[in-house]
Amino acid sequence: MDASEFRRRGKEMVDYVADYLEGIEGRPVYPNVEPGYLRPLIPTEAPQEPEAFEDVINDLEKIIMPGAASPACTELETVMMDWLGKMLQLPEEFLAGKDGEGGGVIQGSASEATLVALLAARTKVTRRLQAASPELTQAAIMEKLVAYFSDQAHSSVERAGLIGGVQMKAIPSDGKFAMRASALQEALERDKAAGLIPFLVVATLGTTSCCSFDNLLEVGPICKKEDMWLHIDAAYAGSAFICPEFRHLLNGVEFADSFNFNPHKWLLVNFDCSAMWVKKRTDLTGAFKLDPVYLKHSHQDSGLITDYRHWQIPLGRRFRSLKLWFVFRMYGVKGLQAHIRKHVQLAHKFESLVRQDSRFEICAEVTLGLVCFRLKGSNQLNEALLQRINNAKKIHLVPCHLRDKFVLRFAICSRMVESAHVQFAWEHIRELGEDVLRAEKK
Amino acid sequence: MDASEFRRRGKEMVDYVADYLEGIEGRPVYPNVEPGYLRPLIPTEAPQEPEAFEDVINDLEKIIMPGAASPACTELETVMMDWLGKMLQLPEEFLAGKDGEGGGVIQGSASEATLVALLAARTKVTRRLQAASPELTQAAIMEKLVAYFSDQAHSSVERAGLIGGVQMKAIPSDGKFAMRASALQEALERDKAAGLIPFLVVATLGTTSCCSFDNLLEVGPICKKEDMWLHIDAAYAGSAFICPEFRHLLNGVEFADSFNFNPHKWLLVNFDCSAMWVKKRTDLTGAFKLDPVYLKHSHQDSGLITDYRHWQIPLGRRFRSLKLWFVFRMYGVKGLQAHIRKHVQLAHKFESLVRQDSRFEICAEVTLGLVCFRLKGSNQLNEALLQRINNAKKIHLVPCHLRDKFVLRFAICSRMVESAHVQFAWEHIRELGEDVLRAEKK
Repeated sequence: MDASEFRRRGKEMVDYVADYLEGIEGRPVYPNVEPGYLRPLIPTEAPQEPEAFEDVINDLEKIIMPGAASPACTELETVMMDWLGKMLQLPEEFLAGKDGEGGGVIQGSASEATLVALLAARTKVTRRLQAASPELTQAAIMEKLVAYFSDQAHSSVERAGLIGGVQMKAIPSDGKFAMRASALQEALERDKAAGLIPFLVVATLGTTSCCSFDNLLEVGPICKKEDMWLHIDAAYAGSAFICPEFRHLLNGVEFADSFNFNPHKWLLVNFDCSAMWVKKRTDLTGAFKLDPVYLKHSHQDSGLITDYRHWQIPLGRRFRSLKLWFVFRMYGVKGLQAHIRKHVQLAHKFESLVRQDSRFEICAEVTLGLVCFRLKGSNQLNEALLQRINNAKKIHLVPCHLRDKFVLRFAICSRMVESAHVQFAWEHIRELGEDVLRAEKK
Repeated sequence: MDASEFRRRGKEMVDYVADYLEGIEGRPVYPNVEPGYLRPLIPTEAPQEPEAFEDVINDLEKIIMPGAASPACTELETVMMDWLGKMLQLPEEFLAGKDGEGGGVIQGSASEATLVALLAARTKVTRRLQAASPELTQAAIMEKLVAYFSDQAHSSVERAGLIGGVQMKAIPSDGKFAMRASALQEALERDKAAGLIPFLVVATLGTTSCCSFDNLLEVGPICKKEDMWLHIDAAYAGSAFICPEFRHLLNGVEFADSFNFNPHKWLLVNFDCSAMWVKKRTDLTGAFKLDPVYLKHSHQDSGLITDYRHWQIPLGRRFRSLKLWFVFRMYGVKGLQAHIRKHVQLAHKFESLVRQDSRFEICAEVTLGLVCFRLKGSNQLNEALLQRINNAKKIHLVPCHLRDKFVLRFAICSRMVESAHVQFAWEHIRELGEDVLRAEKK
């Protein structure tokens, strides 16, 4: 949708809201639908081709408004998470379907998803150990629990451990910045020998620093063997898995208990929208469930109803699945795939521009839309380059450290980015690079 | 703003967004302002009288856009939380001001605010005990920690304990459903004698069931004496404290370490927006702080900058303070006070209608916008009445239990509610009440 269509459609939406407010007394105070009403009304999969805005809006009045906030908010979310799960070719066990044990939920951020997974894993292992040894207190167990993550994982993983009150250990990544079996196994053996209880591995697909990928096909089987929860954080990279040519990066997800990525990062959905799936929904709900009278409802004991308040930290919920519904239908799967492919292609374009200049180096494999690069030379030199770039305010880069190297990160992000922007950015960077090199020689 | 003005203003906003998109290449990629730029540009307090929409929009371009997402998002939030804190007459220590130690933050829900307070309190007591006895492990301390809340508190309080891995104990409330000194003191003495470590009290102002108020003036001094963190959850009732005649309900807040209420509940701000203040911001940041390179920035070590990611569970943040800014200016403090007063007045109107009918009874003191009532008689009778009411779908009521009584709750909520709606609802309830009484006699 370009700006001129946005003008038209946006104004139609304003009228829709105003009409709603003016006609509100004519609407029922409570929906006239039964739980489960929504799924049969919409397709089982996202459309391949884009649909017309009118069609989506018409469905809003026809399908959503009769179900008002509840149950429409919950049911559309379950179905949209199934749509998205199918787009990613997630294993069937992660889908809710009509009576699956798994399913998806929209969280606010990957941090929350990791925390929720950690809490679920903590509860599960605690119950298992207490079932075997009823004399064990929760505190006695928690003292010995240990979770693992790659030394390349996002800081929110370690933070989840801080909040959950359990030990977290960073596993040294390999030469390609990936967590591998050997290093994980080594930590496991050492910790088990010391009397600790390994209970969780958080694997990252597409790390923040350099978009590296932990080796799921190695890590997954270890988690199974050791009865550890495997959570996958693919916050950024996850969107790419809707393209068949990138789906192999997700191989091994079948070993995971929970999986998360952020459509708000790279799937054209506005912030916030973090998509999380679990194989066993009872693992999540078991960690949080409390049922006061004022939150009781007549359907909750039927087992048919998804109560997302037991899947997350807050109790209140926004209607975020509408964003997914609109985006999936306005773009179609093909449109979203084209968006991802364009970004990856532009990243490779930037990569090849960098490679053509022997004063620069590429610092990590370019797989998706992130290029890690630097001037050959000292960290100081590259810090000076970054400072010049960000002071000039024509583009903006965020750096990272890869081992002991200070590295610049060129990230393709915008919905509206074109080849000319990448070209412009590279020429700008090269010029400033020359300035720093010249200044160094003096 | 009525529906017809909304039509006009909404469409202007759509054009504003479209203009932004069309002109985006002309904007700087990074703001040209220094941290702290925003506070001097806007008043130190919310306006008493409503302002014109044009004035707010003009300020958006003049004050917010030059500061883009960062630092404008953070700085407007700090200043709006100061405005709101002043509206509530919070003690000075809770305000950020130019160089205060306290300040406010917008959370997504009261559940998150309670959890954040609990985690801060847990970290604080753990550090204090470890400073005195360095041999104590975190787990050894956590095993003994105990937090208190009224048996009328929201379930999210107990849930925060579940997540944080600490014991939570419900204090029996008194005849007016309030937590009092004697019951708290009794639990404290018992637990201390058993070797437990009391570290937190969560007091509720305006409970969910019946809008009762814990006795802060009794509970607060106990918390001070015992070195326990006092968190106040005023999720619903907090909005009323902007009216001088209701401010006394907040007396005792001076004993608290943290205070929270939800402007999205009753202050005309759209969901979600939960306002939380602390006296010592370092208590919060101490519980979460991790600083990876990719989140570092040049101002963070100056001590001048508020980094809200250390104040909350997620790392990402939305620009929610804009909602406060618009609402405060469009209504003015007087407009918001009028909104609260009207609701309270309508609740009292409903109360007096109920009291005029001797078949019904009022079940708890009506202080704000909630009326707890029932038919005199059995719970079964009242469950039948509720079922009839909700099946008729003309109004919708959510029940509660007060001790062993099943009680109906009449809540004044809508921005557009009028006296006639209350009259209509009462007549409807009375008729259905007659039906159930007649059916019972048969």
